[in-house]
Amino acid sequence: MKRTLSVLAASTAMLAATPALAQFAKPEHAVEYRQGAMFVLGQHFSRLGAMANGKVPFDAKAAAENAAVVEFMSRLPWPAFAEGTDQGKTQAKPEIWKENDKFRAAATKMQDEVTKLVAAARSGSLEQLKASFGPAAQSCKSCHDHYREK
Amino acid sequence: MKRTLSVLAASTAMLAATPALAQFAKPEHAVEYRQGAMFVLGQHFSRLGAMANGKVPFDAKAAAENAAVVEFMSRLPWPAFAEGTDQGKTQAKPEIWKENDKFRAAATKMQDEVTKLVAAARSGSLEQLKASFGPAAQSCKSCHDHYREK
Repeated sequence: MKRTLSVLAASTAMLAATPALAQFAKPEHAVEYRQGAMFVLGQHFSRLGAMANGKVPFDAKAAAENAAVVEFMSRLPWPAFAEGTDQGKTQAKPEIWKENDKFRAAATKMQDEVTKLVAAARSGSLEQLKASFGPAAQSCKSCHDHYREK
Repeated sequence: MKRTLSVLAASTAMLAATPALAQFAKPEHAVEYRQGAMFVLGQHFSRLGAMANGKVPFDAKAAAENAAVVEFMSRLPWPAFAEGTDQGKTQAKPEIWKENDKFRAAATKMQDEVTKLVAAARSGSLEQLKASFGPAAQSCKSCHDHYREK
């Protein structure tokens, strides 16, 4: 019974994952896609961080623009962590697929923190940007610590 | 006089380019950024192409979603073609910086065609998607033919 259930669970997981992988012609395209999306995201996130941490002067317009890109990009990588994309030039750990619910929850947590960061950046207040940047950065780091090879 | 003018022109071009490059900590970050953005763009563009070319069934919702990503991503790569980013692991030809006005015009042409493609995808009409996909694809190809090493 236990075995039947885990086979069923595995099949369901595969079914759920199929459309995501089917969007990519090859698994390595999914890898390159999520790496590209994460890199673009990271660059704009860093620019917000530079302002939040006082390394560059606060510029409300630039903050809002960078936040808009961070918000958009934060939604893209997840379908590319499809089943079968744990191979090739990737730092993705097997835990992503072994505990996929936890991984998805961490991705959702990041998007929630980004939503707050975007609202802060749009407010035009450096104080709000500072207050929301730390938790957003922590949500990135936490996921990387658990699910990305060093 | 001629020499003074070209020195002036070069200085002005450098000044204009400085903010774009200054956004990146290293030239190779600009290269990775534009490659990442282009790859993400290309994947969603291909999904529209698969529908336009009848390789997958037309799905109006998926078309609109993919078009939204294409539209957003089509704006990102250009600041990353900053002066001084013609080095490293890049297929970018020197002509990008030698005839930068032409290159920028080709980038604008592409964004114009993408705007039409997005409107077509949002219309929910496969015929409109088909009609606009070809010119958009041609605007990508034309720029790649001129400015990207094979």
